[in-house]
Amino acid sequence: MKASRFFIGTLKEAPADAEIVSHKLMIRAGMIRRVAGGIYNYLPVGLRSIRKVEQIVREEMNRAGAIELLMPAVQPAELWQESGRWEQYGPELLRFKDRKQTDFVMGPTHEEVVTDIARNQIKSYRQMPVNFYQVQTKFRDEIRPRFGVMRGREFIMKDAYSFDKDVDGLKLSYQKMYDAYVRIFTRLGLNFRAVVADNGSIGGSGSHEFHVIAETGEDDIAYCPDSDFAANVEATEALPLIAERAAPAEALTKTSTPGAAKCEAVAKLLDIPLEKTIKSIILATDNEGEGAEPTIWLLMLRGDHDLNEIKAGKIEGLKGFRMATEAEIIEWFGTPPGYLGPLNTKKPVKVIADLTVANMSDFVVGSNEVDFHTTGVNWGRDLPEPVVADIRNVKKGDPSPDGKGVIDICRGIEVGHVFQLGTKYSDAMGATFLAENGKPAPMQMGCYGIGVTRILGAAIEQNFDDKGIIWPESIAPFQVVVCPMGLDRSELVREHAERVYNELVEAGIDVILDDRGERPGVMFADWELIGVPHRLVIGDRGLKEGKIEYQGRRDTEATLLPAEEAAATVAQKVKAALQA
Amino acid sequence: MKASRFFIGTLKEAPADAEIVSHKLMIRAGMIRRVAGGIYNYLPVGLRSIRKVEQIVREEMNRAGAIELLMPAVQPAELWQESGRWEQYGPELLRFKDRKQTDFVMGPTHEEVVTDIARNQIKSYRQMPVNFYQVQTKFRDEIRPRFGVMRGREFIMKDAYSFDKDVDGLKLSYQKMYDAYVRIFTRLGLNFRAVVADNGSIGGSGSHEFHVIAETGEDDIAYCPDSDFAANVEATEALPLIAERAAPAEALTKTSTPGAAKCEAVAKLLDIPLEKTIKSIILATDNEGEGAEPTIWLLMLRGDHDLNEIKAGKIEGLKGFRMATEAEIIEWFGTPPGYLGPLNTKKPVKVIADLTVANMSDFVVGSNEVDFHTTGVNWGRDLPEPVVADIRNVKKGDPSPDGKGVIDICRGIEVGHVFQLGTKYSDAMGATFLAENGKPAPMQMGCYGIGVTRILGAAIEQNFDDKGIIWPESIAPFQVVVCPMGLDRSELVREHAERVYNELVEAGIDVILDDRGERPGVMFADWELIGVPHRLVIGDRGLKEGKIEYQGRRDTEATLLPAEEAAATVAQKVKAALQA
Repeated sequence: MKASRFFIGTLKEAPADAEIVSHKLMIRAGMIRRVAGGIYNYLPVGLRSIRKVEQIVREEMNRAGAIELLMPAVQPAELWQESGRWEQYGPELLRFKDRKQTDFVMGPTHEEVVTDIARNQIKSYRQMPVNFYQVQTKFRDEIRPRFGVMRGREFIMKDAYSFDKDVDGLKLSYQKMYDAYVRIFTRLGLNFRAVVADNGSIGGSGSHEFHVIAETGEDDIAYCPDSDFAANVEATEALPLIAERAAPAEALTKTSTPGAAKCEAVAKLLDIPLEKTIKSIILATDNEGEGAEPTIWLLMLRGDHDLNEIKAGKIEGLKGFRMATEAEIIEWFGTPPGYLGPLNTKKPVKVIADLTVANMSDFVVGSNEVDFHTTGVNWGRDLPEPVVADIRNVKKGDPSPDGKGVIDICRGIEVGHVFQLGTKYSDAMGATFLAENGKPAPMQMGCYGIGVTRILGAAIEQNFDDKGIIWPESIAPFQVVVCPMGLDRSELVREHAERVYNELVEAGIDVILDDRGERPGVMFADWELIGVPHRLVIGDRGLKEGKIEYQGRRDTEATLLPAEEAAATVAQKVKAALQA
Repeated sequence: MKASRFFIGTLKEAPADAEIVSHKLMIRAGMIRRVAGGIYNYLPVGLRSIRKVEQIVREEMNRAGAIELLMPAVQPAELWQESGRWEQYGPELLRFKDRKQTDFVMGPTHEEVVTDIARNQIKSYRQMPVNFYQVQTKFRDEIRPRFGVMRGREFIMKDAYSFDKDVDGLKLSYQKMYDAYVRIFTRLGLNFRAVVADNGSIGGSGSHEFHVIAETGEDDIAYCPDSDFAANVEATEALPLIAERAAPAEALTKTSTPGAAKCEAVAKLLDIPLEKTIKSIILATDNEGEGAEPTIWLLMLRGDHDLNEIKAGKIEGLKGFRMATEAEIIEWFGTPPGYLGPLNTKKPVKVIADLTVANMSDFVVGSNEVDFHTTGVNWGRDLPEPVVADIRNVKKGDPSPDGKGVIDICRGIEVGHVFQLGTKYSDAMGATFLAENGKPAPMQMGCYGIGVTRILGAAIEQNFDDKGIIWPESIAPFQVVVCPMGLDRSELVREHAERVYNELVEAGIDVILDDRGERPGVMFADWELIGVPHRLVIGDRGLKEGKIEYQGRRDTEATLLPAEEAAATVAQKVKAALQA
């Protein structure tokens, strides 16, 4: 491509509504332009990167045996009524009526349409497994679209849907997609992790998210650097940190702890490790019947641990819990929040101890009296044996649930999701087939999404500096830029620029020749902003010594290459990076 | 591709709502499936053909210097309000509100969005010409969607928009697109014509339609087999068929023509050529003021000619005309319709003579009396000299307007349209740039559409037989199918099938190996229905004699090829067809 025949729409300033770096840089690099909230034009530079992502996604989906088709953006409401999502889906589902007043939706996802295809096309177990995928424009009417392509309303997704005759087949289809996703994100040159999203009901995980690791990510991910374990912190099992409970050694002692309402302050005041203190969290669940008292729960966590509300909500009786009110705390504990504990409550409370707390001994709890804590507390002796559950978030240094090392925490941006749907849609929509035993059975479905446009934002969040984007070679809108200095003045420069450009084209490199006639400073700033990974600068001064200047986008300095070898050397660098 | 890893959804019967052959065959061949009225799934076989069309379109658009981007399907109403089309566009424009009650539309076309891009990005004449294009999903809420992809609601279009600094630039951009379209439809292997759609205001045509020639087409096209002239019949100039008016030779004679209300009957009864008779068409235009009488018009056409209502509507005073009522005809002519003419009308009428009629002499008109005509009528002697205009449709055998031969008529399906918009949108939306003289000027725009999905339908309407579709090599979902006979029984067949398949893949041919294990009859019927242009049948009987059976989709019989040369021979056939 020659820049004079292309459209480069770089900007000096990002708009005020761009909050995060990828949004700012995509606007400034001329990749996207806002049309309305969460709705963008993909300008030529941006579209090139999108197409490269799509191409890699397609190649790996095809390699995994998935078959491409294309479903419509506009879907009849009747399919959504069949699945039940017409009622269940919130206002993110854009609904409208056509000129005949028939209800339609703009598809945020295509389970209904693809299940309709499957129930019409698949009659026998012999026709499965089958996996249909598409790369398609979706719409989700986000309440607060922002972050550019990271949380847009109209966006491009690859969505795939597998159909199997049984659960074993589904697991195999799921694994194929999992493997394909690993290949896709590897080829895209992204630092990513497959993360357990949900522990599933029976036998292993039914869902993985694929996260690009970036400090600006929205999700906390627990991972083990020594194994391939990774899970959303919310979904990670927190093992007990104490293997066996020690026998009581201290006497139960009420101690003055003036002003030390928090565990950290208690530990400091008493000069004991934070790991000896207990955090008491008071929850309430409402009971049926007019005027019925709520049930009050005391959840005990070690002082350095935090409550995982999702885990707490899964405990029997705690579904739909709420924080207890101050009035309730005073009524049940006889004291306002700050010095609470399980000893001598005014009214009975249900105590749940975290797995680690259950194995502690000689620990410190609030005395249910302002400015007092009780030390030397022990299960069995001072308190009845508690109900025990995993109710905390894992933290850095915890043992990995797979037993292969310790946990570290990072932040991630979700760019892919694989999910075992089972028979949710096939049951609702009557997608059955004739099984080998001659009887009808519901198809086992999986769904597999990749946010194509979102990947651009995630890749930038992971790869940028103060000059602009730093693209992986696989997604870069151009892999190499050739910048001739004084193209209009020097025939020599023109000749070499054309030669190098043509050599790169012939080597299959996606190269742009900047023949716009801009000043060097403008050229360099544009291509650094756009994030082209490799730059060749061709000028009279270098050519006199038979040299062309090369600089990688992450390099702090340029190096000189022999002019005749420059194209081949850079082509080699690109290919090496793509294979890395 | 191996068929066992692909999805083939052929059907024995087409649904009842499929009226035309392309719709029936696309359903039966498993290319499309209805989701709602005018909304389809593109199944794997169909999507392959769509992608091939898209690829050719992209290559030629890029070659012509157009730059690809991607605009959103969902567009804010405010842009349409700016252009004025929010009010002008009928109910085919799908309008809806998002969750914040803001008005949006599903884009049927993108002039507004692209003009918004241009006015933000193009500041100087130096940035033009520029031509942006996209391949994108559009929505038009057709009142009566039908004919499958030929008149759908959701469909894929390539739309391009050029921006130039002046009219000369626009004409150049337009010509480049015209030339690109000729290359595109040629490469697609379609029999097509570029057709003048509108004579434009000044200096040549401002609009061409590209039509695929097919008997089932919706449009009548006049073309000259001896030149490249082609135009919609509605827009084709009808030259006078008589060069000079002859002097009167007959006396004016009122003649009894009982029951001969039509020109054909009069000619037969009087034993004269139909070309001597005149057809009188009575139009009315309403005048302002309460109780004002309409103006009644008598349009005179030769007996073998038909009125062109578009041309008539352009005559001064006739804009918005209607057919006169029977009551009006009786009031103005003193007789009901059937024997009308310009002689002795009861009240004054405005007479318009077609160019041919104006040069006739000794002609026959109705006498304004039931069962009577008047012969030997002559201008000047019996009637005042008429107002003369081109008011008829051309017909086969007429002189071509370019003076290079005679007209023939065919039917066509519009698959592309190029249009000089001028400053319509730039004026309405303030898309100006700084011209060379330092002053702001509106951009000159052109727009250029190709109906990607429609092309599939049009190609089928042009290429089918009673077995199914006959694809041009360039659009075929697969170019070659290899059908092994008894794959499970014969190792020899399997070896040769794999070898031939691999050789074709290596030759860059898009081949499918039918390894489904179906019976020969099923295989042949499927691939003939799907329309694969080349078929190789590999069986033990042939292989024993070193032969593989070849049959082109249009061939009535198979031929035998040496087994070792079969792949190369077929690859050669495909490549020859693509270059033809």
